Amino acid sequence: MIRHLVLFKLNEGVDRDDPRVLAGVEAFERLDGAVPELRFWECAWNISDRPIAYDFAVNSAVEDAEALQRYLDHPAHRAAAAQWREFATWVIADYPF
Amino acid sequence: MIRHLVLFKLNEGVDRDDPRVLAGVEAFERLDGAVPELRFWECAWNISDRPIAYDFAVNSAVEDAEALQRYLDHPAHRAAAAQWREFATWVIADYPF
Repeated sequence: MIRHLVLFKLNEGVDRDDPRVLAGVEAFERLDGAVPELRFWECAWNISDRPIAYDFAVNSAVEDAEALQRYLDHPAHRAAAAQWREFATWVIADYPF
Repeated sequence: MIRHLVLFKLNEGVDRDDPRVLAGVEAFERLDGAVPELRFWECAWNISDRPIAYDFAVNSAVEDAEALQRYLDHPAHRAAAAQWREFATWVIADYPF
């Protein structure tokens, strides 16, 4: 199994209740049902006010490297990422477990 | 429950086999047994070569906000974080689940 973690930071001046952001969160929430490769899925807003805290997190898992690539290439994932690219940046880490 | 995710980036010029890094990874691997608040613990090197990939990840969970603070304040966690501060930076996200 491969864990795929993503931490998102909203661009300066973008609020969590921005309609684009709300739509982006909805797009992520729908991914779990839309992408068959996903074996584990959590996505949520950060609740920490530490300066090093990012704003939103995706914690997911897929079977193997091929499944991860299929997830990344899935039209629903690509569409959600394109939405987020309008108002946020992110960093990732993938690891086997 | 609260999920506590941390993504670490090694400082420029620091390698994964640097003795300080190896010791830092060992310190994190020992945390799971050392801190009773931890209900879930994964830590591992990133395997993605995407430019947005960070180097190392911690994926943990604790019961609630008070348990998270006890974890952060635990001497074993503070010591491990101090080790990592010598050679890496990191970002976090915490969320309820």
